[in-house]
Amino acid sequence: MSAEKFEKSKTIELRKKHVGPSCKIFFSHDPIKIVQAKGQYMYDEKGQCYLDCINNVAHVGHCHPDVVKAAAQQMELLNTNSRFLHDNLVFYAQRLQATLPEKLSVCYFVNSGSEANDLALRLARQYSGHKDIITLENAYHGHVSSLIDISPYKFHQLSDAEQNQFVHVAPSPDVYRGKYRADYSDPATAYANEVKAIIDTVHKKGGKIAAFIAESLQSCGGQVIPPVGYFQQVAKHVHKAGGLFIADEVQVGFGRVGTNFWAFQLQGEDFVPDIVTMGKPIGNGHPMSCVVTTREVAEAFMSSGMEYFNTFGGNPVSCAIGLAVLDVIVKEDLQGNALRVGQYLTNLLEKQKEKHPLIGDIRGCGLFVGVELVKDRLKLTPATAEAQEVIYKLKEQHILLSADGPHRNVLKFKPPMCFTMEDADLVVEKIDLILTALQNTLI
Amino acid sequence: MSAEKFEKSKTIELRKKHVGPSCKIFFSHDPIKIVQAKGQYMYDEKGQCYLDCINNVAHVGHCHPDVVKAAAQQMELLNTNSRFLHDNLVFYAQRLQATLPEKLSVCYFVNSGSEANDLALRLARQYSGHKDIITLENAYHGHVSSLIDISPYKFHQLSDAEQNQFVHVAPSPDVYRGKYRADYSDPATAYANEVKAIIDTVHKKGGKIAAFIAESLQSCGGQVIPPVGYFQQVAKHVHKAGGLFIADEVQVGFGRVGTNFWAFQLQGEDFVPDIVTMGKPIGNGHPMSCVVTTREVAEAFMSSGMEYFNTFGGNPVSCAIGLAVLDVIVKEDLQGNALRVGQYLTNLLEKQKEKHPLIGDIRGCGLFVGVELVKDRLKLTPATAEAQEVIYKLKEQHILLSADGPHRNVLKFKPPMCFTMEDADLVVEKIDLILTALQNTLI
Ligand SMILES: Cc1ncc(COP(=O)(O)O)c(C=O)c1O
Ligand SMILES: Cc1ncc(COP(=O)(O)O)c(C=O)c1O
Repeated sequence: MSAEKFEKSKTIELRKKHVGPSCKIFFSHDPIKIVQAKGQYMYDEKGQCYLDCINNVAHVGHCHPDVVKAAAQQMELLNTNSRFLHDNLVFYAQRLQATLPEKLSVCYFVNSGSEANDLALRLARQYSGHKDIITLENAYHGHVSSLIDISPYKFHQLSDAEQNQFVHVAPSPDVYRGKYRADYSDPATAYANEVKAIIDTVHKKGGKIAAFIAESLQSCGGQVIPPVGYFQQVAKHVHKAGGLFIADEVQVGFGRVGTNFWAFQLQGEDFVPDIVTMGKPIGNGHPMSCVVTTREVAEAFMSSGMEYFNTFGGNPVSCAIGLAVLDVIVKEDLQGNALRVGQYLTNLLEKQKEKHPLIGDIRGCGLFVGVELVKDRLKLTPATAEAQEVIYKLKEQHILLSADGPHRNVLKFKPPMCFTMEDADLVVEKIDLILTALQNTLI
Repeated sequence: MSAEKFEKSKTIELRKKHVGPSCKIFFSHDPIKIVQAKGQYMYDEKGQCYLDCINNVAHVGHCHPDVVKAAAQQMELLNTNSRFLHDNLVFYAQRLQATLPEKLSVCYFVNSGSEANDLALRLARQYSGHKDIITLENAYHGHVSSLIDISPYKFHQLSDAEQNQFVHVAPSPDVYRGKYRADYSDPATAYANEVKAIIDTVHKKGGKIAAFIAESLQSCGGQVIPPVGYFQQVAKHVHKAGGLFIADEVQVGFGRVGTNFWAFQLQGEDFVPDIVTMGKPIGNGHPMSCVVTTREVAEAFMSSGMEYFNTFGGNPVSCAIGLAVLDVIVKEDLQGNALRVGQYLTNLLEKQKEKHPLIGDIRGCGLFVGVELVKDRLKLTPATAEAQEVIYKLKEQHILLSADGPHRNVLKFKPPMCFTMEDADLVVEKIDLILTALQNTLI
């Protein structure tokens, strides 16, 4: 393909030389060089096509022509900071607001999920005048210092992990493997009471809660779907302590869950977070993101007297792209597609579960689906090596899937939203073959 | 102009409703709506042209066709994360490296100046195993939590400012208004000794220095040019304490200073920072930035075992844009232009200084120039209101300039690098008239 400048070996050599070694690559023993992509397909330097089941950033499909066009047109016209008035900024804010409960009406535009979550923490701390943050087990919220502190997924990797004194970790509301499982009478209340217990302990030590932060559905944490009612109860406890509820929708927002535009809405209409952070899919790959909050929180933040200035945030190009993404989601009914194809995929996987003892659990909403592999369905022993094997074997067959969760045994589906039933058939068929072969070698 | 969607009053109304009130706007009493821009010119909704003397982000000129083309072409082809191999990433890293001293060979690609500086702090803390940071008076390094902490420009705005215990503020090496002035025998050594004294105090209290961070030339801090030799001596003291030297080139890099590609190089060839952070001009407005460091620092960071993953950082589109910007700088000799036009502008301003007692100091390198207004050349009383008046009057005449520094009395020139001698003539002529009128009302 024309887009190749170096031989693959040279690319690898230059990467080793000039790119930070902490920046990991997929399939590091035999990495993939991708030169082109379209919809849910990616192409390597030899023109080989890969089915992409993992890129939730390329939300409306890789290189969607409407998005590319909107970007190019605005780039030709103007790209500058938000200290000048511009219609794209306010129109986009208005359009985003229309997807949310009314009280979430004030936007801050930034460039990444990390910038969004860091700002969310600043907003909560300024509003409450408090410092302590409650986060979930296995959570990942971003790469800047303040977020490593609230990301057990990250800080547990550190040999000399030293937990920030203002950060408190609540159990992941995982009804499959967690502390309270599906057979427990009321896991939502039980998990929410754990948060309450943390608040009480913090209070006893003289601390004060600024915020509880959680992904609406845990992604890196293992595709965890919190039981309905959990967020409402947590919000009640956190509000009573003077803190705010931050819903991180960086991975799961923008219609992916199918039934709703935002994943927090799965908890019911009676739940509204105080702050919502967005990222990844928002610009179909363009570096942009957003924090939305209430008027009260925004005004408390302003009352500190400190300006918030973000050089690139909310520029006319990013907003044009954001608008185009919203338009495509509607025009192509991608939320509906996520619901239908997600349901279809889940059904196919459920059938595989009947067939393969290695599959312990299937869970998901729309095109956000997890398949947890276990060696023993009673003990739930994580089938980590097997999950890796599935991923590697799928790659050989040109299907991109990944495994995550604390035991890296959860296969994660979060494909571009144009994923089809045929794509679902294909990947499940391959998984069936791989699991069958695996099961045979295990016997 | 076609690009207007709302009446200006509606834009203002929507902005008030949906955009965080901490996000300030230029000329808030009568803000400007910009709908188009080209080169060093911006156009409002009525087609009125403004000469842009402040947008250092639109480095190679607003909406440069080569940059737009590179972006659009790559957007059509592929935009994905850096976990796949891609030639743009490694080629761009190689090209950036070629502009730097050899030991600065490892890049991390991120999305904003803030992400870059936060990562720089993480690198320094991990490498040194230390925590304390020395920053300069009036410094601004970004908007995320960890950087507000090291930005006196910001945290001094807080009513309840509570300085982070690991952050120490050294005097700004300002030889015009600072502690040691041009008439002092050796201001470089005197200012560096202040840093040494801080290190000694930190050590006495049991702390350990992770890094000294400074802009190579202070921008928000008031266009301060540190005396030659200052960085070398600071680096010596900091290295002796086991810490690193971080040069923030977010505002001043990429040829702006004219004589060199990087502003830290103004200190001489014997000075090489351990970490350089880049931003603003790097993508001509596209959200991207970079941290470059040494192999040793990069390996120490990796040895923590923690992956560094940045969703958008180093994507093929950002790298294509970065490459195009480097190409345009060379092709159009913009560094040379900065040197020539900057010199010409400085000469014109020097003549104004002879004429107007309000002008206390002219300082700068290339197209990074500051004009400090004072009411009294001996007492250096800041002429803050007068600086605001100049800015507002220039705006009426469709010239965009800003005032900054701790007293907001320093007129800042940092225009797109295609700024011409005619542009310089125009703005200086207008300033002359405004200062003449001002002086008359003062008498
Ligand atoms: C839930 C969640 N929040 C925040 C982030 C950080 O986003 P970014 O990499 O854009 O900074 C991520 C990234 O993976 C994420 O998964
Ligand atoms: C010197 C310096 N460093 C860092 C930053 C932060 O850059 P960004 O706004 O892209 O996060 C700025 C922004 O004004 C800056 O002036």
